[in-house]
Order: sequence, then C-alpha cells, then structure tokens
Amino acid sequence: MTNNVLHKSLHPKYDAFLECEKSLEEARIVLFGAPFDSTTSYRPGARFGSAAIRRESYGIESYSPYQDKDLIDCPVLDCGDLELPFGDTDKVLAQIEACTDEILQADKIPFLLGGEHLVTLGAFRAVHRKYPDAVIIHLDAHGDLRDDYLGVKLSHACVIRRCREVMYDGTLCDKVPQKGTEHSKMDIDEAKQGYEGINPHRIFQFGIRSGDREEFAWGKSRVHTQLYNLDGLSDLVNQLQGKPVYLTVDLDVLDPSVFPGTGTPEPGGISFEELRKGITLVCQQLTVVGCDVNELCPPYDPGGISTAVACKIVREMLLAL
Amino acid sequence: MTNNVLHKSLHPKYDAFLECEKSLEEARIVLFGAPFDSTTSYRPGARFGSAAIRRESYGIESYSPYQDKDLIDCPVLDCGDLELPFGDTDKVLAQIEACTDEILQADKIPFLLGGEHLVTLGAFRAVHRKYPDAVIIHLDAHGDLRDDYLGVKLSHACVIRRCREVMYDGTLCDKVPQKGTEHSKMDIDEAKQGYEGINPHRIFQFGIRSGDREEFAWGKSRVHTQLYNLDGLSDLVNQLQGKPVYLTVDLDVLDPSVFPGTGTPEPGGISFEELRKGITLVCQQLTVVGCDVNELCPPYDPGGISTAVACKIVREMLLAL
Amino acid sequence: MTNNVLHKSLHPKYDAFLECEKSLEEARIVLFGAPFDSTTSYRPGARFGSAAIRRESYGIESYSPYQDKDLIDCPVLDCGDLELPFGDTDKVLAQIEACTDEILQADKIPFLLGGEHLVTLGAFRAVHRKYPDAVIIHLDAHGDLRDDYLGVKLSHACVIRRCREVMYDGTLCDKVPQKGTEHSKMDIDEAKQGYEGINPHRIFQFGIRSGDREEFAWGKSRVHTQLYNLDGLSDLVNQLQGKPVYLTVDLDVLDPSVFPGTGTPEPGGISFEELRKGITLVCQQLTVVGCDVNELCPPYDPGGISTAVACKIVREMLLAL
Amino acid sequence: MTNNVLHKSLHPKYDAFLECEKSLEEARIVLFGAPFDSTTSYRPGARFGSAAIRRESYGIESYSPYQDKDLIDCPVLDCGDLELPFGDTDKVLAQIEACTDEILQADKIPFLLGGEHLVTLGAFRAVHRKYPDAVIIHLDAHGDLRDDYLGVKLSHACVIRRCREVMYDGTLCDKVPQKGTEHSKMDIDEAKQGYEGINPHRIFQFGIRSGDREEFAWGKSRVHTQLYNLDGLSDLVNQLQGKPVYLTVDLDVLDPSVFPGTGTPEPGGISFEELRKGITLVCQQLTVVGCDVNELCPPYDPGGISTAVACKIVREMLLAL
Amino acid sequence: MTNNVLHKSLHPKYDAFLECEKSLEEARIVLFGAPFDSTTSYRPGARFGSAAIRRESYGIESYSPYQDKDLIDCPVLDCGDLELPFGDTDKVLAQIEACTDEILQADKIPFLLGGEHLVTLGAFRAVHRKYPDAVIIHLDAHGDLRDDYLGVKLSHACVIRRCREVMYDGTLCDKVPQKGTEHSKMDIDEAKQGYEGINPHRIFQFGIRSGDREEFAWGKSRVHTQLYNLDGLSDLVNQLQGKPVYLTVDLDVLDPSVFPGTGTPEPGGISFEELRKGITLVCQQLTVVGCDVNELCPPYDPGGISTAVACKIVREMLLAL
Amino acid sequence: MTNNVLHKSLHPKYDAFLECEKSLEEARIVLFGAPFDSTTSYRPGARFGSAAIRRESYGIESYSPYQDKDLIDCPVLDCGDLELPFGDTDKVLAQIEACTDEILQADKIPFLLGGEHLVTLGAFRAVHRKYPDAVIIHLDAHGDLRDDYLGVKLSHACVIRRCREVMYDGTLCDKVPQKGTEHSKMDIDEAKQGYEGINPHRIFQFGIRSGDREEFAWGKSRVHTQLYNLDGLSDLVNQLQGKPVYLTVDLDVLDPSVFPGTGTPEPGGISFEELRKGITLVCQQLTVVGCDVNELCPPYDPGGISTAVACKIVREMLLAL
Repeated sequence: MTNNVLHKSLHPKYDAFLECEKSLEEARIVLFGAPFDSTTSYRPGARFGSAAIRRESYGIESYSPYQDKDLIDCPVLDCGDLELPFGDTDKVLAQIEACTDEILQADKIPFLLGGEHLVTLGAFRAVHRKYPDAVIIHLDAHGDLRDDYLGVKLSHACVIRRCREVMYDGTLCDKVPQKGTEHSKMDIDEAKQGYEGINPHRIFQFGIRSGDREEFAWGKSRVHTQLYNLDGLSDLVNQLQGKPVYLTVDLDVLDPSVFPGTGTPEPGGISFEELRKGITLVCQQLTVVGCDVNELCPPYDPGGISTAVACKIVREMLLAL
Repeated sequence: MTNNVLHKSLHPKYDAFLECEKSLEEARIVLFGAPFDSTTSYRPGARFGSAAIRRESYGIESYSPYQDKDLIDCPVLDCGDLELPFGDTDKVLAQIEACTDEILQADKIPFLLGGEHLVTLGAFRAVHRKYPDAVIIHLDAHGDLRDDYLGVKLSHACVIRRCREVMYDGTLCDKVPQKGTEHSKMDIDEAKQGYEGINPHRIFQFGIRSGDREEFAWGKSRVHTQLYNLDGLSDLVNQLQGKPVYLTVDLDVLDPSVFPGTGTPEPGGISFEELRKGITLVCQQLTVVGCDVNELCPPYDPGGISTAVACKIVREMLLAL
Repeated sequence: MTNNVLHKSLHPKYDAFLECEKSLEEARIVLFGAPFDSTTSYRPGARFGSAAIRRESYGIESYSPYQDKDLIDCPVLDCGDLELPFGDTDKVLAQIEACTDEILQADKIPFLLGGEHLVTLGAFRAVHRKYPDAVIIHLDAHGDLRDDYLGVKLSHACVIRRCREVMYDGTLCDKVPQKGTEHSKMDIDEAKQGYEGINPHRIFQFGIRSGDREEFAWGKSRVHTQLYNLDGLSDLVNQLQGKPVYLTVDLDVLDPSVFPGTGTPEPGGISFEELRKGITLVCQQLTVVGCDVNELCPPYDPGGISTAVACKIVREMLLAL
Repeated sequence: MTNNVLHKSLHPKYDAFLECEKSLEEARIVLFGAPFDSTTSYRPGARFGSAAIRRESYGIESYSPYQDKDLIDCPVLDCGDLELPFGDTDKVLAQIEACTDEILQADKIPFLLGGEHLVTLGAFRAVHRKYPDAVIIHLDAHGDLRDDYLGVKLSHACVIRRCREVMYDGTLCDKVPQKGTEHSKMDIDEAKQGYEGINPHRIFQFGIRSGDREEFAWGKSRVHTQLYNLDGLSDLVNQLQGKPVYLTVDLDVLDPSVFPGTGTPEPGGISFEELRKGITLVCQQLTVVGCDVNELCPPYDPGGISTAVACKIVREMLLAL
Repeated sequence: MTNNVLHKSLHPKYDAFLECEKSLEEARIVLFGAPFDSTTSYRPGARFGSAAIRRESYGIESYSPYQDKDLIDCPVLDCGDLELPFGDTDKVLAQIEACTDEILQADKIPFLLGGEHLVTLGAFRAVHRKYPDAVIIHLDAHGDLRDDYLGVKLSHACVIRRCREVMYDGTLCDKVPQKGTEHSKMDIDEAKQGYEGINPHRIFQFGIRSGDREEFAWGKSRVHTQLYNLDGLSDLVNQLQGKPVYLTVDLDVLDPSVFPGTGTPEPGGISFEELRKGITLVCQQLTVVGCDVNELCPPYDPGGISTAVACKIVREMLLAL
Repeated sequence: MTNNVLHKSLHPKYDAFLECEKSLEEARIVLFGAPFDSTTSYRPGARFGSAAIRRESYGIESYSPYQDKDLIDCPVLDCGDLELPFGDTDKVLAQIEACTDEILQADKIPFLLGGEHLVTLGAFRAVHRKYPDAVIIHLDAHGDLRDDYLGVKLSHACVIRRCREVMYDGTLCDKVPQKGTEHSKMDIDEAKQGYEGINPHRIFQFGIRSGDREEFAWGKSRVHTQLYNLDGLSDLVNQLQGKPVYLTVDLDVLDPSVFPGTGTPEPGGISFEELRKGITLVCQQLTVVGCDVNELCPPYDPGGISTAVACKIVREMLLAL
C-alpha cells in the first residue's frame, strides 16, 4: 500500500483557499496570509482572519454567476500563512515585505490576506520597489492617515500615511535590502506631470467615514478622499488606465450590518453589492500589481456572515484579476 | 376544582404559532413542521427552525399594518412538528408526504415549516398528485438543481431538480401509494400548450446567486431563473392567474445581513421588504395550493433577528393566503 | 378525515416537561412556571427559565439510573406558564399565590419553576396558609435576607426575609383573600416548643456564600445558615421527619462552572452531584408540601449546559417526591 | 508625591461618554442614564444600554465628518447613571423626573440614555412642566399607544399614551411636587389654535410598523403616525419652527440588520443613514428642549454593532444640538 | 525562484494535528477524521469536530509533562478528513470502514476523529475483521445500546449495540467486501473460553449515566457497564493483558462543566483528570489496535474550552499508544 | 443649583473596582490596570480584562464571608487604566514600570490588573529596584520560561525568564532611569546565603502544566516548579516569612471549566477554592510588596463566569493584604 492509496480515500483538507492549489509555475497570482493584529487599537482578533477565510471558503462555490467564471480555471496558488512574531512589528513588516518581494520577483501578483491593515505597509514597500509609480486605491471606513497613534508610528491607524511616505521619499523602504532595484526614490516633480496632470494624487481613498479632525485636515491636500461611498471610482478607473495599481481593501468599508466581524465597526458603510462592483471594476479594468484584503476579525463574527462576505470578495477579486 | 379552573389562571403555552389554534374544521390552512437537516452540506441546525418560529412568534404582533389584517381572524391550525427519524431520508420524506396528503384530502392548504430545503420534496410529491399541473415558485439563493451532492440524490442541494422529476415523469412519486389519484404522470407536450405557450417553464426561480457551473448550465433550458432579485415576479403573477402554485421560500434568498441564521449564508441577497412584497403578491394574487418556508438555522442566529424575520414572513404569508 | 388522523402522524410538541402530561385527576404533583424577573438586580433573563427547562427537557431521558425510576410512571401534570404582567410585582405575586392555592386545595403538591427567586414568596404564602408550621429548606448562594434592595422590599434579594415574615407574623399573606383557612397567623411561642426545641429555626439555608455584612449579621440568630456547602443536611433531615417542608432551590447554589447561566454567578459553589444528592434526600425522606426551582437565566447559557442541569434536577426532584 | 503625579501617568477611564466631561457650568447639555428594564415585555437587558454606550464610545471618534464638528468643542457633561430600584416602577419614574427637573432648572438640555422606553415618561413629565406646549417627535418601530399591557399601565408598550395624558390633562405629572411651575395643565382648545391650526397633533410618530389593531385604531385620530419610514419629517420640521420639542428615539426604529441588539426586533425598519439624517435635521433645525435614546439591549448584541450604532447616533445628536 | 524559496518564508498551515506529519512509512499510527453527524438526535455540529481538533491543536504544546514525551518524536501521520456524503449513512460507514481497512492492512493503528459516535461502527467493522477477538472499551455518558432510534438502526444512539452484533454474529460486516480476511465470523462458544472465562463480556462501558429503561435492562446481561465513573478500569486492564482492544471515547463522558461543546450534554460526568488517567492507562498498558475520539460539537463551544480538552486527550492518547 | 445637587440624585459610575475609591493619602494599596495584549500568542483580548473586572465588580458584594471583612473598610485606591500604545512593547513596559515606581515611592503596595502576563515584567522591574531581594510566587498553567517566542524576547511566554534576569543580573531594569536607588544589581552569592540556604530558588511556580520540553529542562535547576497544583505552598509560606514577595497570578492556573475566558486555556487546572485559599494564605501570611492578576480575556467569556471569578479573587487578595 502506498501513500497514494491512502490519499484516494482521504480528503486531506489543506487549508488552501477554494481550488487555489495550482503549482507555482502555473500560478499567476499568489495568495498568502499575514495573521497579525498587535497594533489593533480597539478589538483584536484580525490575526484569525486569513485562516477563517481559507477554512470557510468551502462554504461558497468556486463558480461565480456574476462573472461566469470558475476558480478551478484560475492560475492561483495559495501558499498559506506567514508565521509572524507577535509583539515585534518591525520584524513582522520585514517578513511580509520579503515574501511579497519573492512573489514579485517570480513575476506573480501578490494577494495578501490580513490580519490588521498595517500589513499593507509590508506588501506595499515591496510593490513600490518594483513599481515606483504604483498608485494606491484604498477602500476603507478610516483614512488611516494619522502620523502616530499614542506615539506609535507603525500602527494600523497610520498605515496609509506610512505608505505615502514610501511613495514620496522612499526612506522607510530603505530599511530592507533592495535586491537589484535602484529607483525606490521617486522624482515627485516629474511624477506630477503625466497622469498627475489630471489628478494630482497618487492615493485614492473611498468610503471613508471616520477619523480625527487633524487626519482629515492633513489628508485634504495630500490624498484623494471620497467620503462614505465609492462615487467617482469609475472615473478614476478611466484616468488610471495602464498605471500600476495597488488595491487595498479594508473590509470595514462595508456597513456593519453586512460585515459585523471587524475590529472597529463604523455604521454608515457601503453594501456588499457596491463593494463587489467596485473591486470587480478595479481588478478587471486596471493593472493591479498587488492587492490585499484585511480586517476580518472572526471573534466578533458569531454568525459567520462576515467571513462569508470576505470569502466572496476574495473569490470575485481572484476571478477578475 | 376542575381542570378549567386551573387553566383560567394558567397560560398553557402550547407551542402553536401565534393565534393559529383554530379547530381543524374551521381551518383553511394547516401549518406543520418538519424538523429535519440531515442532508445539510455546510452548517446544520435547521431542525430547530420550526420550533424557533413558533416559540418566538410571541415576540411579534398578530396584527399586520401592511395588510391591515389580524391572525386572530384567520382560519389557521398549527398542528406542531412531525417526529422525524434523523438519518433515514426516505422515511422522512415519506412522512412529510403522508402528512401533506392528509391535509390536502381534507381540502386544506398545507403550509410546511422546515427544516432544510429537502423537506419541500415530500410536500410537493403530495401536492403534485392532487394538482398535477401545479407549478413551483422558488425563492432562494441557490438553484438546488444538482443531480447529486457527493453521490447523494436526496440532498437539499438537489431538491428542485427532484421536484422537476416529479413534475415531468412522476416516477419518484410512484413510491407512495396514490390514494385515488390517477393523473400523476403528466403529458408534457400537452402541458406546453396553454400557459406554457407563453412561458415554457413550470419552475420559476428568483434571487438565485450561487451554484456550480453545471447546475446553472443544466437549468438554463429547463427552469426559469431570475438571478439575484425578484425582477419579473409581477409579470409572472399575471401569467399564472388561476394556475395551482406551490410556493417554496428558502429564507437564504435574503441577504445575510437581514438573515444571518441559515446554513449557507450567501452575501448579495434581497432585503426584507423585497421578500415581504414578493410573498404577499404571490399569496394574494395566485392560487397557492401549498407552500413552505425553510432553512432557518437558529444556532447561527445569536441575536435572534433571523427568527424574527422568519416569523414575520410566515405571518404575512398566512394573512395573504 | 378527523383530527385524530392528523394527530397520529403529527407530534404536537406541547411545551410540557418530559412526560408530565397526566390528567389533573391522576396527578399528585402539579408543575407550573412563573416567567418573572423584574426585580433581578444584576443580569435579567430568568423569565425565560421555565420555558427553557420544558423545551430542553426533550434532550434528557425520562428514566433516571440514579433512582431507577421513569417519569412515565409519575403522576405529574405540567400546566404551563402563568402569564405575568412585567412591572407590577404585587400582581405577579398574587397570581402565583392564587395558582399555588388552587393546586393545594386540589390536594396536589405545587412545583414552581422560576423565574427569579422572588416567585417563591407567592408560592410560600399559599403553602403557609395551608401548612402554618411548614419550614423552609433553602439552597442558594445568597442569603436573600436583606430588608430591602435600594428601597424595594419585594426584591429577589429579600425573598427569604419576606418568607420569614409570613411565617412569624403572617401579615403579608393577609393581603390575599384566604378562602376558608383561618390559621395563617401562627403562635410562635407554641411553635418553639416541639421540633424547635431541637432546632430553634424554621428556615434552613445551605450553600450560602454571598451577601452584605448586615444580612449575615441579621440572619445569625434568625435562620440556620450553612455556609458554602450542604454539610449538615442529612442531620436536618432526621430532625424534620414528619414536618411539612417547603423546598426552594436557587440554582446559583451550584458553582458557575456547572451552572453559568444565572443572573448572579458566585464562584465557589457546590457540584452537580452534591446538589443531586441533596435534593434527592430531601424529596425522598421529608414531607415536601411545595417546592420550586429558580434562577435559570438562558441568555447567559450560550452552550446550554445550565438548562441541561436544571432539567435533570427537576427530573430527579419529581422522581423523588 | 501628589495625586496629580499619579494621574498624569494614569488614564482614569471615568465612564463618561466620549469627551463629555465639561463642568456643569460650561455644559449646555447634560447626559444621564436610566438603567431600567423591568417592564420590558420580551427580551430584557436594556438596563445595560447606557453603560454600554458610554464604554464603547471609546471605539468611535469624537470628530464627525458628517457635520465637521468635534465633541471636544461641545458643552456637554455626562453625569453617569441613576441608581434605580428594579421592581418599583413608580419610584424609578419619579427619580428620572426629579433628575430631569434639576437639569432643566439649571437651564440645561436633558439628554437621557435608556434603559427601556418607559424612562421617557419620567423625563417628559419634567419637560412638560417647564414647557407645557412641548410636542413630541417619536421615532420607533412600535406605536407604544396601548392603554395597558396585561393590566400594567406603566409599561414600555404604553409610554407614548402616558405621555399624551401628561400633555392633555396633566394628571400624572401632579404626582411629583412641582417646584414653582403652575402651568402644567394646558388649555387644549387654545393650543389647537396656533400651529395646531396647521397640524392638529402634538405627538408625531415615524417609522411605526408594529402594534395591535386597537392601538393603531386609537392612535388614528390622536397622534400623527407615519408608518415604516421618516417620510414627511422635513415638512414637519418646517411646521414646528420655534416650538419646544422633545425628541425620543427608540433605536428599534432601525432595521434589525443594522440594530439587532434590542428587546423587540422588528424587521422592515429604516437604515442608519435615514436615522442619522432624521435626527440631525430635528436637532439642528428645531428647539429641542429634551431628548432621549433608548432600547439598546447589549446582551442581544454579540458582535457589538448595535452599540456602535447607538454611540454614533448619540454623537451626531450631541453635535447637532 | 523555486517553490522551496517561497515555502521557506511561508508557513503553510496544513491542517494536520500538531506535529503529526510523519510519512506513511514512518508512521505507526494513522489519524483520520470522519466529519459526519446526520443521525445526531439532539444538537448537530459534530461534523466540525475533527477539523476543530486539528486547527486548535496549535493552541497546545506538543510536549506533555504528564508523560514527559513529545509528539515530535511520535510516529504519527494525520491524513485529514474523509469527504463524506451527508444523508447517506450506509455509504458513510462504508467509507470509514474502507479507510480503516487500508490503515490496518498497512499494519498501522487507525485513530479516528469524529464526528458523531456512529462513526465507530465503520471503524470497528474493519478492526473486527482483522482482530475477530477484539474487545471494546467504551467511555461515554450514554450506553448507546438501543435497538433503534425512531425506527432507525444506524443511529448514534445504537452504535454499541450494532458493534456488538458485528462481534457476535458478524452479519453486518459481511456487507463490505472482505479483502483477504476469512475469520470475520467468530466462534462464540470458543471465545467464551479464554479471558471470557474470567469476564463473560466483550464490551466494557464506563461513565454511563443516561439511557432509557429498556436499554439498561437489555445491557445488563450483555455488556459490562460501570455507571457514572471509571471505577474498575484498572482491574479490567489487568484482565485484558495481551487482548486486542478497540477504545472508543465519547467525550460527553466528561462533565458538561469541563466539556460543554457536545450534542447531548449530561450533567454528573467525570473530570478531565479522571479521563486523562483512564485513557493513559488503557493506551499504555493494553494492546490497542484501533481507537476513536468523538462527539466534540464546536457550535456549542463558544469559549473553545471543549476543543482544548479534546486536543489534550488526543495528544495524551497518541503519546501513550 | 450646584454640581452637588446633581450628584446626589445621580450615581456616577466611575469605573473603580468595588468601593476602592479611597484618597491617595488614605490608601495603602493602589490598584491600576494595564490593558495590553500585543504579544499574546494564541487568542488576544486580555486588553479588556482590567476594565471588565472593574465593571463587573458591581455584580459581587464588597463583604467576604470567607474573611469576614468588607472592602468598604479597606484602604484601597483604584486609579484606573494606563493608556498604553499597542504595538510598542518597550514603551508599554516602561509606562507600567514608571507607574509602579510612583506607587512604591509613595509607600503604597502596587496591585496591577492585566492585560496579558508580560505586564508583570514592567511592575517587577520597579519592585526589584526597591526590594532587590524580592522573590516571586507565580501561579500559572504555563512556566513562561522560554528564552524567546518566534524570536521575540518580550513575549508573555517568556515573562518569568525575563523577571529572573532582572533578579540575577539586573541588566534589563537598567534601561529605566533609577530615581535614587542604587542596589538594583544583587550580589547573588551573598543572596544564596540566607533563606536561600533553605531553598536555593527565588522564583516559585505552582500549577504549571504546559510548556515545551526545553522550557521545563531549563527551569529544572533555576526555579522551583510545582506541577499541576499548589502542593507545598504552605511550607513555602513558612520559609519565606519576612521576605518581600511579589505575587503574580495568571488566572489560567484555574481549570478552564472554572475560568474559560483566557487566551490559552489549559485543561487540568486547579479549582476556585484551591486558588482562593492559596492567594489568601500568601497575602495574609507574607510580606507582599506588589502583586498582579492577569490573563482574563473577556471576548472568550460569553457567560461572564470568568470575570466573576477574577473579581472575587481580586476582592479576596485586597481583603487579605
């Protein structure tokens, strides 16, 4: 009797996201998780988000009637979760960055499952090194534009501000050895000519409905912020044709009735249909070079509906990419 | 002292649905429950659905401002739950069928509370025997059109396919002795003339948003499927005037924000108001000869809102019938 | 078709406690519920206790290996719940008293399911009128001996003090019309001779582990209090042979690990086995003329184990009576 | 070492609502809680509502992008919760009335956090004494117009009917000593001239979707009732310019998907955005002389989204006042 | 870049039980799961048991201070879960039997994780074919000795009775093709000589505290039943030296305070320490040729303590084997 | 009207632990909280522990029948929670250390409420500076003796090892300015003479039942470890008479049945009574110069019993100190 015989009758449930078990060679998209939540300011538990998304993906279908496509046909590899050291934020971000880097160097699209929103910083550092002109489309209830949270700079409440620093001065990404890329620092003036002639920003936020006063004031001239909803997203998609885009989805952009299981629920959010259409549009029409989905917090999702929403959003993004 | 004296001061909470305690003679509608969930593929617990609906019906009013009617005035008898043997699907369906048969032979309308969706098959077999030209209006997130689920034909994921077989070849319903009905096998060609001249289908699905690729492909030419919502329902109601209708409501047609407590939550569903209007339209305007409401799964309804929704939908259907 | 035919195939789950559906004539014990919790000081929800006990009784067996007896053979009638007006404590107690009175006048043993502990006062008033020398055995985590709770005298934190007033001066029970009983006021001096020659008390508390300082001080000379456990219960049983006994069981006498689902959990309580043995001893060996089981609070029992405990305690009491 | 030194390093989380710690002198609005739920007819627990709102207010921001204002700048004092005697409704209402009275006499606006809806009666009695022509704007799923509930007049199901009695005959408010106000009884005929020339009612209900038949019939000629939604609210705001307004918000006016954590969830309610716009309109445009927010029931809010909604509604009301 | 590089930084959480990832060649014990619960009579959800045990095994250590051993050193392979067709009990049992058979033919010890208790029947059929004189040690709250449950013979309430039929007449195991074993039918008379000269039974139950009267009566002469606890287990271990033993652990043998998360909680059970010592004794001292652990029902384990208990019991059994 | 008038009718529920509102001058014990859980390896949420203990302390009595004392008479000040920056462990520990330092310099006993167990390190650093010969009594399920956890040295899994480093080489506490203490580095050889002539250890662990193999091996010669229970604690109390003692209580030393609400539940723990007796003994008989209670994780305590246990343990410690 060989291993094969055993495996025929058994169904070894490797925790891969639904049907995302292609080989690295076949794969064009590589999914990986960053189970981290140490800087969460309110209700922790996002560390369990990526595992819950994988596990509960078996409750949905691999086929999408919205796009008439099936994950079975998609070149996706789910590599599992990084093993991250709770309590050492620098190390955690470095690990996420290194992993994203590997995926990018293999010419795949990194697709990161959080964890809290700070994980985006690790991924974006690597993406920025490869695509120094990458812009960010950011769907979220919170601007995440603070300079610090109780004195901590590497906080999930500051992540987009940190990403902007990576974009405009490149200093933070210098911390990590830059295997063969030399253009991490961008010439801002030059950048402003080009598509920024049309839109002066490189970070585009949608759905924002919470933050402190300073944060909103600071962001006014520095990022494009669409309050409350996704209005203007299709115009933006027209403007950004051909540009490399990093898409970061904080699932708390959804209304808490749709998505209760998150660390900082903010009433007044968008519906599932709005988000589904938004991410489909971005992933189908733009050159997404990296993306993430984060802030699912399973301990606050007793009925499991938030995880179901997260699974479908991930499925639709994978199919649209 | 007599029993009466005791009962005057006591309030014997028989588990009947709100005010549905008319005598069998008075009743025009007979409510009964089928606490079964053995073929549920994902999260079991629908077996507790019918009991929860009865119990929590005391949390709503018997009067509906929507219809300006009161259940107190409605000729409904709630007979309680069938006692079903978990683990023997054939027997379970036979029991449901026999009970539906009795109700139909007494010239009442059977109103079945699930349980999982497979219970519909038992009820429809009996309805089909009495009304061989009965059509099905099916509100659901899932098409339930698979031929089998992991090799099992009597699964909640196949129930509408099985019902269609009952309609078109009548073989399955032969399993049960057919007391005095001889037309269980229908002449399909003949049937196609008549209202099927207008609409070639006899199964009309609404709200469908999940299934595998084969299922959607198979259904394309065989059932009428309205994806995502109830669009076209009022047109259908016009077409089906006078036809006997079996209405089956899988409550997961609702969005999980409205109805989290179900076995397989599918984001992207309809609102309470859409469903309320839909079932009111069908029950008021058409000749409903049988109906069911199913897939409430109380263990996944920690706040109790799904049960409240189910109670109100049942109340509105009873008032509209 | 008759009603009988329908009932043969249906299983009308009247909410009666397991097999307690004897006729009033046959019954020697009458079970009834008082779904009241308006004076609960901490976590409300005991109003759902009696219904939960009935409903979940179907999860246990009617046969007890401990006593080798079966509820099928026991002359018990479960009459259901009183319908009580939340917010009017006087009326609620009067209703409980009246119902207990009816049961006693029919020469049955009243068995009351709470609700919060204050319900005991209603039942004991009626019991005291029929049996003016009835003593109380009280199993509880709390002494319930306060004179008032935030100025309220009819509070669950004062119930045993109120019962003692009924015993010793009979004033409170005068409030209710006393159909044909004239001995509601007891001659205390006379009473002290007799078994009170042995034990000067008429209220016997066990398991007490929480209260304020005044309460303990007041009780010292007025009630027999066994702290923390049931030590001394079998001695007491020997002393009370032949005396009419009212047994009141506040289930929070159990440790919260065994019985989390209660309004005021008090760590350091007794085990299930200790309670089971204690109530079996009292019910088998003494002349119990009335009893109650209270303070199950289902909303704080997410896993359902407290309800399972309550069901078994009720079953064992019924079998032992 | 002084107390100050200790306090600098410590963050004493007084349970005040977010930034509402102005001195009484500075304050124009005084927030206080009434943790009472003894007349709740279905699921109790609203007693924990006010404390939950305070505690979880730390999960939202003090700044509102909707109004571009910050609670830091608002003259609000949160005084904490009244300590109320469960089980004595008269006393409870008298305490609420006395506290409201004190706040009004200090020329502040009382802002009451429930508790169940009956608490409104206590506050409105005091408001009516100071402002005998005050009208009520009432957002709720239930009319609360019954004369009694199971014989109890002081029930949360009767609260608006009781308030109307206070308005029209002033008898109930006579129960409390009326320090220096003599106009508590209003000349109704006179009142009907004036704005009531336009609208004959003084109680304006919105969002109502549940009640018994008698209640709706009684209310028809006596209160203005907008079923299901807030349609007509802006017209009303135009009519009531300059009139003193008492605003009472029963949060169950929201759909249970948005606000599951309440005692009596009623499917078919309004969205967060509808409520937010409604209360902002009233608080900004009208002379609100008192208000309350009630019926948050935390035990039925496992994911915490209802509390988040309540916090934001309170914040928006405070900012708009 | 190769797959290896990616895997170095990633931690692909294959759902294997803690450190049980030896190759089939190395392994002496093979763990596999049977996620089935279709015959559960009360609260379903045991289907999620095996996956929860694997997943949460990461919350415990691989090292046991009790035995001073580490799972890292143990020759165990976890093969994952069988994919079982809900609703077809016969097929499910056949699959479990076939898989057990494969493991036994490879001369490994099968270690089955349920699922509900009926899964034992599938495993024991295969064990009995290889070891026709295998006895059963059965730890459980329930005897599971009924002939049928509501007419269903293949029910979790009948599993030990069915196993006994396999032992004594071998008829049921004839249903499955017997690859190369010819001794599945045992000569009972012969068997009774030997250790049965000492103890006439071949099934040894411990901890039993629930069942119907008939079940206990039937079992009296046919199985050895120790009520309530594990008394006599060490004597039994002495008697059974050298005999092949199948050990089946229904975790509801534990008290619900220790193990709330199960389908049918039965108060009055054993402690964690009693169970830990019991299973260690059996696994260390006897020739265990197959075993299972079942009836963990995660939906009723909101705090996760039942899963933690299950993980430790499985760890201790694996280390002791 | 003055503030006083308002406060008389209001009950401002400052979040202080039950009756611990003495002035700093009166106080001999100062309670403060450290809501931190960023290094938690398994289930986060201990950040909510201290607030839950304060809030739910209103559910217990201030009087203890065990000690016949009342918190009303105890000189305790509860200062509230530190506001800690999630994600920066160094800063967090420095803040805890500074606060402890202030309390010690005011000659009060610091009583720290966690948070996760790492908070002990901050408090012990300050205690060690004032009392360089302070020993640690450590009640816990886990040894917490690892050198690092996934490379992180400041982890809750390493806290006792870090404390030992503070004891034996004093290096870590050098990081913080040492206002006027110069003996932070201890002469170990000298120390070993004295009470260490009797017992060579300065860290005494009880109840330990989980850890990795290396951890147990390392600890063998370096700390005193009593596995599983508190055996030997009273002997130790005799040996340590007069020595300054720091007592750290990780509540997961309790069995999960008693205390489910913790990050890493470990079956096989001690009972409430064992812990209550143990901490009473230590606090009454020894010179406790600082102490903490930690690892209550409210999100995993759905029924609230763990918080009730924590409240009582804190009350008993305060009364015994």
